[in-house]
Formats: sequence, C-alpha cells, structure tokens
Amino acid sequence: MAIYLKAKKLDFSTGKQLIVLMNEEEANNFGIQAGDKIALQWRGDKLVNVEVNLSDKKIRPGFIGLYEDIWKKYPLEINEIIELHLLSRPDSILAVKKRLLGKKLDYEDIYSIMKDITENKLSNIGVTYFVAASFFYPYTNDELFYMSKAMAETGEIIHFGKGIVADKHSIGGVAGNRTTMIAVPIIVSLGITIPKTSSRAITSPSGTADTMEVLAPVSFSAEEMREIVKKAGGCLIWGGGFNLAPADDRILKVTNPLSLEPYDKMIVSIMAKKIATSVTHLVIDMPIGKTTKVSDAKTAAEIKKKFEYIAKKYGIKIKVEITKSSDPVGKGVGPALEARDVLRVLQQKENRPLDLEEKSLKLAGVLLELCKKATAGEGKKLAQKQLQSGAAWNSMAKIIKAQGGDPDIDSEKVTIGAIKHYVNSQKSGKIKMANNKKINDVCRILGAPGDKLAGIYLNKEIGDIVKKGERLFTLYARNDARMSLAKEAIKKLKIFEF
Amino acid sequence: MAIYLKAKKLDFSTGKQLIVLMNEEEANNFGIQAGDKIALQWRGDKLVNVEVNLSDKKIRPGFIGLYEDIWKKYPLEINEIIELHLLSRPDSILAVKKRLLGKKLDYEDIYSIMKDITENKLSNIGVTYFVAASFFYPYTNDELFYMSKAMAETGEIIHFGKGIVADKHSIGGVAGNRTTMIAVPIIVSLGITIPKTSSRAITSPSGTADTMEVLAPVSFSAEEMREIVKKAGGCLIWGGGFNLAPADDRILKVTNPLSLEPYDKMIVSIMAKKIATSVTHLVIDMPIGKTTKVSDAKTAAEIKKKFEYIAKKYGIKIKVEITKSSDPVGKGVGPALEARDVLRVLQQKENRPLDLEEKSLKLAGVLLELCKKATAGEGKKLAQKQLQSGAAWNSMAKIIKAQGGDPDIDSEKVTIGAIKHYVNSQKSGKIKMANNKKINDVCRILGAPGDKLAGIYLNKEIGDIVKKGERLFTLYARNDARMSLAKEAIKKLKIFEF
Repeated sequence: MAIYLKAKKLDFSTGKQLIVLMNEEEANNFGIQAGDKIALQWRGDKLVNVEVNLSDKKIRPGFIGLYEDIWKKYPLEINEIIELHLLSRPDSILAVKKRLLGKKLDYEDIYSIMKDITENKLSNIGVTYFVAASFFYPYTNDELFYMSKAMAETGEIIHFGKGIVADKHSIGGVAGNRTTMIAVPIIVSLGITIPKTSSRAITSPSGTADTMEVLAPVSFSAEEMREIVKKAGGCLIWGGGFNLAPADDRILKVTNPLSLEPYDKMIVSIMAKKIATSVTHLVIDMPIGKTTKVSDAKTAAEIKKKFEYIAKKYGIKIKVEITKSSDPVGKGVGPALEARDVLRVLQQKENRPLDLEEKSLKLAGVLLELCKKATAGEGKKLAQKQLQSGAAWNSMAKIIKAQGGDPDIDSEKVTIGAIKHYVNSQKSGKIKMANNKKINDVCRILGAPGDKLAGIYLNKEIGDIVKKGERLFTLYARNDARMSLAKEAIKKLKIFEF
Repeated sequence: MAIYLKAKKLDFSTGKQLIVLMNEEEANNFGIQAGDKIALQWRGDKLVNVEVNLSDKKIRPGFIGLYEDIWKKYPLEINEIIELHLLSRPDSILAVKKRLLGKKLDYEDIYSIMKDITENKLSNIGVTYFVAASFFYPYTNDELFYMSKAMAETGEIIHFGKGIVADKHSIGGVAGNRTTMIAVPIIVSLGITIPKTSSRAITSPSGTADTMEVLAPVSFSAEEMREIVKKAGGCLIWGGGFNLAPADDRILKVTNPLSLEPYDKMIVSIMAKKIATSVTHLVIDMPIGKTTKVSDAKTAAEIKKKFEYIAKKYGIKIKVEITKSSDPVGKGVGPALEARDVLRVLQQKENRPLDLEEKSLKLAGVLLELCKKATAGEGKKLAQKQLQSGAAWNSMAKIIKAQGGDPDIDSEKVTIGAIKHYVNSQKSGKIKMANNKKINDVCRILGAPGDKLAGIYLNKEIGDIVKKGERLFTLYARNDARMSLAKEAIKKLKIFEF
C-alpha cells in the first residue's frame, strides 16, 4: 500500500535517527504504529528509511512531519508530496510471530527481539507472546545461548583487561546463604579478579547486595565499578546500578503476573550478566532441597547441562555445584545479622558459624581449582589458608574501603535490631528441620530487608538436641509494632521442626 | 503463608465491595498484587474475604487499611493485629495458566476470564497469554460458545420482549457494501423487529454506522435504542454507544500489534453481540474473494460451521450466506456516496446501483424465509414487493426520524465532496477487475471516513467495455490538499484492471 502525505519540516533533531511524525488517528487508519519503519519517496526512485512517531496534536491528518535530520540531508520543499511505503513489521514482531508458529529462531531473530525489548519498541504484549511461545516449543540450547548473548550485547559490556575474570553465583532460595561475601575476598587475596555483582532480595529477607550494604555502599556505575576493581582486585556491588542485560527486567515483568518461574529464563538471565561482565571462570552454586528454588536432582541436572552448554559456547570455564540444602547456612538471617556472620568468619572469631565457613571454603576451593590456582582437591585447603592467615579479611577490608565503607569494622560492632525477643523451646527433643520459607516470612514480617537491623538469629541448628525452655532463636526488629506482628506470626509459622 | 499487619480504619466506603489498602512495596514483597483476593482473620476463626488495593503513600508498611464497609460490619480496634491469608490467584489467572498448559476450559473458567477482562482485573499480559494459548491449542466449538456467552453476559444484555428479533451481519472487506441499510427497512416494513447495531470503519473507508450517520445520528444508549425500536420497529445505530460484549475490545488490543486476524476471535465477537441484543433469527453474509476478509471457500465453510454450532447452542436460527465477491457492491465508496446509493435504491431512482439492490433483496429474502415470513424461494420476491411499493423507504424514513435525522431527504440532495476530479480511461478495453483494497486506500487518502463527503464514485463496473477517454471514476474530497494526494496516489494504485 502506498500512502501520500504532504511534508512539514519539523524543528526537531535526534542527531542520528531519521524520524517522521504522523497524525495518530490517521496512522492507525493506515495500520501504522509508533516505532514502525517506513520508507519515504519523493523526487525519483530514492527510498529513505525512517521510523514513525505519532502525535494527535502536533501534526494534522494529511501531513507528515519530518525531523531536521531528514530535510537537511535530502532536498525537500514544504508541502511537497511524499509517498510512504509501508515496510513489513519490525523484525522483532516477525520473529515473535515466527516462534508463535513453532519455528526455531536464529541469532538475528533473537537479537532483534532483545534489542527492541531493550529500546522499548516491543510492547509488553509482544514480549508476552514471545514468553508464551516457550511454553509450547521449549527453547533449544542454541536459542538459550543466542538469548543470553543478545541480552548481554544489547546492554553495557564491561571489560577488565586480559587474564582471568572469576565469578561465583548462587541460585537463591536459601536463607542466610552469604557464602559470596566470604568466597570473593578469598579469591581476591590470591590475585584473581572477581568483579562480583549481586541482586537485592526479591523474595528473600536479604540479598547479597542488601547484606553488603550494611558494610559499604553498593550502588555504582560501570566506570566506578572498574575503579573499585582496579584498587581492590574485586568488588561486591549491586548489579542494578548499570545497564547489564537490560532486557531481563522487561521479560521478568511479563513472567511475574502468572507467577511463572521458567528455569530457562533464569539460566539466560544469569549467563547474560556473566557475559556482560566478561567472566572467564564461573562457579554456579545450586542448592537443592524442599524449600529452595530447584527442588529435585533431575531438574538440577538438566539445568546444569544448559549452563554448561552456554558457557562452552562462550568459552567460559564453568563448574556447576549441586549441593543438598534445606538448612540455613549461617546463624543470622536479615541484612545486619548476615553481615555479622560474614565478618565473624572473615575475622575468624570463636562464635563464627562454621557451616557458613565450610560452605564458603568449598565454593572458593572449587573456583580456585577451576582457575588453576590450586590442583584438583587442593582448592579448599588453599582457601582455608587464606582465611586463617587473615589475607581474606585483608582483601575484604580493601573492598569495603574502595566502596566507601569502614574497613575497621569489627563483627561485634555491627548494629543489630533495636529491640529483641528470645524464643525458647516449648519441648525437649532433637531439631529435625529448619524451614527456610517460614524463616523468610518471619524476617519479612520483622521488616527485612527494608530495615537492615531486622531479622532472626538462630541459636540452634538442625541436629541439635534441645531441652524445654532452652533458647531456640532470637527475633530482632526496629520497633515494637514489627515485633508484635512477628510474635503473632511465630505462633503459626514454625521455624524448627522436632 | 500467613502475614500479620496492624489495622488502620480508613474513611472510605464502596457500599458493597470489601476493600483493604496495603503498602505497595510491602505487598509486592509478599507477592500480593492489586486486585488479589485475600482473607482476613482476627478474634477467632472467622475469615473475612476482601480485595486488595495498593498505595505507596496512603498506608505505611506494617499496616493494613480497612475500608469502612469492613470495620462497620465487624468489630475491630485500631492497631488490632490482623492475620492475612493469601488465597490463590484470581480464578482468571488460574484459567489462563490452565489453557497455557493445554487443558480445555469450562464455562466457569472462561466466564472468570471474560469478567476479569471486563473489570480490568486481568492485565494485557494475562490477556495476551490467553490469546497466545489459542495458537497452540485451537478453541473447541464448546469453548467458542462459552466465550461468546461469557462475553455477552459480562456486558449489557438488551431485551426486546417476546417474538422474533432478526438481524443480518456482513463480514466486512468489501467496499461500498451497504446492503444492511436496505435490507433492514425491508424487514421492518413487514413488522419484524430488527435492532441493527453496526460498527464504524476499522480498515475500510466507511462502516455502516459511518454511512448511516450521513442521514441521522447513530450514537445512542441502550435505553434510547429501545425507544427508537419501539417507535420505528428497528434501528440502524452504532454498536459502540453502549456496553455490548465489552471484553471484545480488550482482546482486540492484544491481537492488533501482531496483525493477527484470528477468525475464531471474529466469530466470538459477532456472536457475543448478537446474544447481547437477544437476536433470535440471524443471517450472516460472508463474501469471499481475493481482497475480502475470507479468501477461500474451505475457510468459509469452516467458519460457517462454527457460527452454526454456537447459534444452535443458543437457539438462534441462523443462515450463513457465502457469496463470491470482488466487485464493490454499489457505485459510491465513502460515507456520503454510499448513503446516496442506499437512498437511490430505497427511493427506487432510475440511477440506482442495481447490483446493490439485487444483493440487498437476496439477503432480505433469506432473512424473511428464515423468519417464516415467506416460504422457501419466495423471500426475495416479497422483499422486492416491499421495495417497489415504497413500504421499505417508508420504514427507513421512520427510522431516520426516530434517530433524529431528516426523513424527507432525497437521494440527489445528499452533499457529496466539495471538489471533484474525473478520471478517464487511458485505453480501450473490457474491465476485468475492480481492486477493493486499492479503492479503500484511495478513499482513505481522500479523507474518508473522517470526511463524510470524501470518496470515489465508480462510473464503470466490472464487465463494462470502455473506450479510451471515457470516464472511469470520480474522486471527491473536501479540499485541494487531499485531492492532490489522491491524484498522486492513483498514478500507482490502479482501481480497475483491464
């Protein structure tokens, strides 16, 4: 279909993109939508490709407004008649349709989708069709690779020069799992770059970024991040401060309303961010258990394979560690309580949670072996040496300082909730289980992660034999209001099972 | 999961619904969304079911605001601790998920979806998942029936008392197809109620409502419609003036961006509106041709069966007429030109378009036979009698008057475009084809349907033998700007093919 409109010269310029403005109603009548690409033709055969913006006031029907970038480049009279050629829909729409019809997508297709998601040219509706299609035709491994690659490449890519760039990533769901904040300084203390970005809590009472924020600021630009890594050899910052794999958030928006948790989406999202931060060596920590994100070994094995496929394609050395876990790692849950646990381990205090230390050493060891800093089976020993010698704490203090925190902080000086409440056992017996989800719920009710001081300290752990009246756990809150809510909640939400 | 919050009494009341207000961020943390249903519990076992609204300012975290309707009904202290029980997602979300997973939906499922679409409780994202699912698991006939039923029942239902309520519906795509405005008064003239609602143009240069609007107002409420039908025995009004099958528009919104044209959606949308206007006897006119909505006989036959299935379920007597058509019916295209054609037929003028008359008589005849006003094969003859005797025009004049127009309008007094331009043949030969889509495009460029005066009058038709220099068609426009665009356009858009 050809359309004819009269030219108006507009006083706008983008400096690069060629934009035309059409009357909204008229454009709708012609089936043209904002963001559509069309070709203009006047004075001969030459076609000028432009993008359409719409306005219901700035341009009357029958006219087309041309940005300065167009009429300064090509000779044109006001009121000159311009022929519009409708090009086919944007590639991303065509790609979405293609997948809806059950065809596989190639990299160009997927790139166009990720690009248009990032640039807000694909509507939520289009994104939803794309996600919906994956229900019927699961992504192939290649599509997963393309998606993570395209998701990374349509955002900021951060380079740290040559050499190893290590990373570890835990697939959440376990309360108090702050191994990252211990493993990272161990790695750094051995001269390996590890520019760790973490998320804030989504459903848990504290994400690594929330916990680290108790010790130092965590919001930085990509440039600031590079500076910090240059100074301290690594960092522990929030990943949302710059434009890493920006399509991820938009996709999340359309999966949330149905409470869908596609594992494929999670894999793509994690790998895209690793690609964007130029990671070369990666350990994935995937705890499985009744109350974690991945609950069975079979699913875990499938997820593992997909991670490995994508990593291989990108030349990333990867190790996926599947661990059994239903027990909180560490004794504190909530930002400040977890930060205290982390410091107790790094500062090798008597009262440190040994299970957190153990798990962190194991993970750090795996990563050290992957990076060939230690021979097979020797990684954990090397990690332990770094921890016991104080080298790891020394590296952490440098990171805290580089991020603007107080490097002299002592674990026992971390401020914990303004008020506390002890909960004692009402019977004697052996603790058989600690319920992660219920711990999360109570922490949320106490105010975490918004209130950094709020949380639960577990005085007992699985396997402990307790007597009636013995202290089980301690609630911390900023104020009475929150505490009274939590007291009410724990009548029903049983933290420990006997 | 149980959540505990402190009660605030709010000074708001809805008069019926029980609403609570939660802090937006806190609610998000708990996975609660606006519109979710939850149960409240305080002082004993009683559960009070309420709906959640969110605010980021009106309510602080840790508190829950209760509308007057709640605390006037149930005793409650300010700051009393309330336990929240999350109920499962709204039924509509569960139903959408069910269909995404390939299961069939029952009436309750579909009703919940249509209801939540209508009440804006299902987001565009949810609606898109619903539509997307139909790509992989096509609707069953029962689902189509449920959808049209639920779509009707979640909107306004208009009753016209006992007896026959007739209707005819053309599935668009043919320019200048104004048979409705001729068939309706023929039916009315025989004492049959026909409360015709029509749409405005979506992609064509004039919808029936646009054309009728040249003769009389067409926007009325349901109550006004009933009044008009009472006075005139029928009406020819715009269907968008009241709340008929309101879910239809929201669904349309998510099918548009991909330029999807699912026939099932069209069938459901048409039948829902017939159900909502209590139609008992229905003729569907479905032209097939290269440039119409349905292009092949096989598809037409499938669509026909689906219409028949739904109609039977609802006890509607139906006749689906599949006709071949690529030729515009009538000579004028554009609101005023089409209105003039209609009047010429109803007023039995010498210069009336005979193909439009013929087609209208045929359709009216089918409907008369369906309504048992004529025996099989005699319907068209009866229709012709009503037309020739002036009874049909008499009924039309009553309808025009009841809708507030001038019943004394003569076909030759209809105002046609302020300026005109004749287009003559550049060669001699026989006209083999008239291209509907190109006629539509040129009419749009001339300004139709916004400019009622604009359009094309076809001086020749398919089969005519023309000499070089003979007049082929006439362009009408409100102003020179539009005319010059159209003149440019017809250099490329060939209306007739020789």
